[in-house]
Amino acid sequence: MARPEVPQDALHRLIEALRVLPGVGPKSAQRMAFYLLQHDRNGAAVLAQSLGEAVETVGHCARCNTFSEDQICSTCSDGRRDPSLLCIVETPADQIMVEQTLSFKGNYFVLMGRLSPLDGMGPNEIHFDRLIVRIENPDTGVPVREVVLATNFTSEGEATAHYIGEVLKAKGIKVTRIARGIPVGGELEYVDAGTLARAMMDRRTLG
Amino acid sequence: MARPEVPQDALHRLIEALRVLPGVGPKSAQRMAFYLLQHDRNGAAVLAQSLGEAVETVGHCARCNTFSEDQICSTCSDGRRDPSLLCIVETPADQIMVEQTLSFKGNYFVLMGRLSPLDGMGPNEIHFDRLIVRIENPDTGVPVREVVLATNFTSEGEATAHYIGEVLKAKGIKVTRIARGIPVGGELEYVDAGTLARAMMDRRTLG
Ligand SMILES: [Zn+2]
Ligand SMILES: [Zn+2]
Repeated sequence: MARPEVPQDALHRLIEALRVLPGVGPKSAQRMAFYLLQHDRNGAAVLAQSLGEAVETVGHCARCNTFSEDQICSTCSDGRRDPSLLCIVETPADQIMVEQTLSFKGNYFVLMGRLSPLDGMGPNEIHFDRLIVRIENPDTGVPVREVVLATNFTSEGEATAHYIGEVLKAKGIKVTRIARGIPVGGELEYVDAGTLARAMMDRRTLG
Repeated sequence: MARPEVPQDALHRLIEALRVLPGVGPKSAQRMAFYLLQHDRNGAAVLAQSLGEAVETVGHCARCNTFSEDQICSTCSDGRRDPSLLCIVETPADQIMVEQTLSFKGNYFVLMGRLSPLDGMGPNEIHFDRLIVRIENPDTGVPVREVVLATNFTSEGEATAHYIGEVLKAKGIKVTRIARGIPVGGELEYVDAGTLARAMMDRRTLG
């Protein structure tokens, strides 16, 4: 993505730089810069350090693909969880939502996206090959007995669930889908924990 | 302000650190962190650097009190402007708004706040002593012939204008107030340039 030319002074460079944040336009970038310089220089310095550190150290878990500083993330390393049960979600935010329901004690695979051919999101972009390895040759040493599809109930999330479900069923793997307790068109991230817990309980085997 | 304990991993430290931004709650901080790590690590690195640089280098102009990397800011140093005309605004954002009207070619003084006794904002907090020096002993070598009060038309902005106006009039200085073309309760930052230009033209001498 082309960036505009770099402004000459530090204040305007900061205002411009703040616009990388999603949902932040020129006016709110300016308000944020003025606010930080006037009221919270210490917070701004901590933010600068945290950003630099995260960019340097946060990669992806080799097992579940979510953000992680370690080769294997803390969820995947947790011996109290059942690695034979694998829940597939679109994003780390969705994984956090499922976790908050306390209704799932298996492992996850985070696609970091969804199938969307018009946006150039194909099987490669959702790391489908790594998902297949996780299921067919798990480095956990434990075979996967059930894959729970917890992608969103948007048209793209449904298409993603359908694609993954078809491939896995053809391989003889048991695949379930969380129940449509979630409103049609709804996104997991904005649903209350009770509804999502219900949908997890009501998951059904894909025909 | 007390900060919560520092989270253990870099991702959660980043999410926590993003909450120093005004208007950013836990959910949008999380969304921002995930977005940056997934889609714009380069932008995040530039933001980290810009924040660190701005915190280090941006201070206040010795003459007008706005944010500046230099001892005297570029507006104050601009020889084409009339230093005998001084416009008083609450914030740098308000100064930018007045500049955009192209209706004022004098100098500024930026209070960096407004009088608000309940919030602990008194004459010291709006740098009143420095304002008096700017008017009575200007380092520009040019006497101030008119002070234009362009604080907001909120109750606090009006009280600030009243206070400054009374003190300056007692010293025999000509003080004007931008016209109430701006809606009552309105803030300069959110007004269109035409209305603000009108208010600048219609400024009147304080009784
Ligand atoms: Zn993992
Ligand atoms: Zn200045």
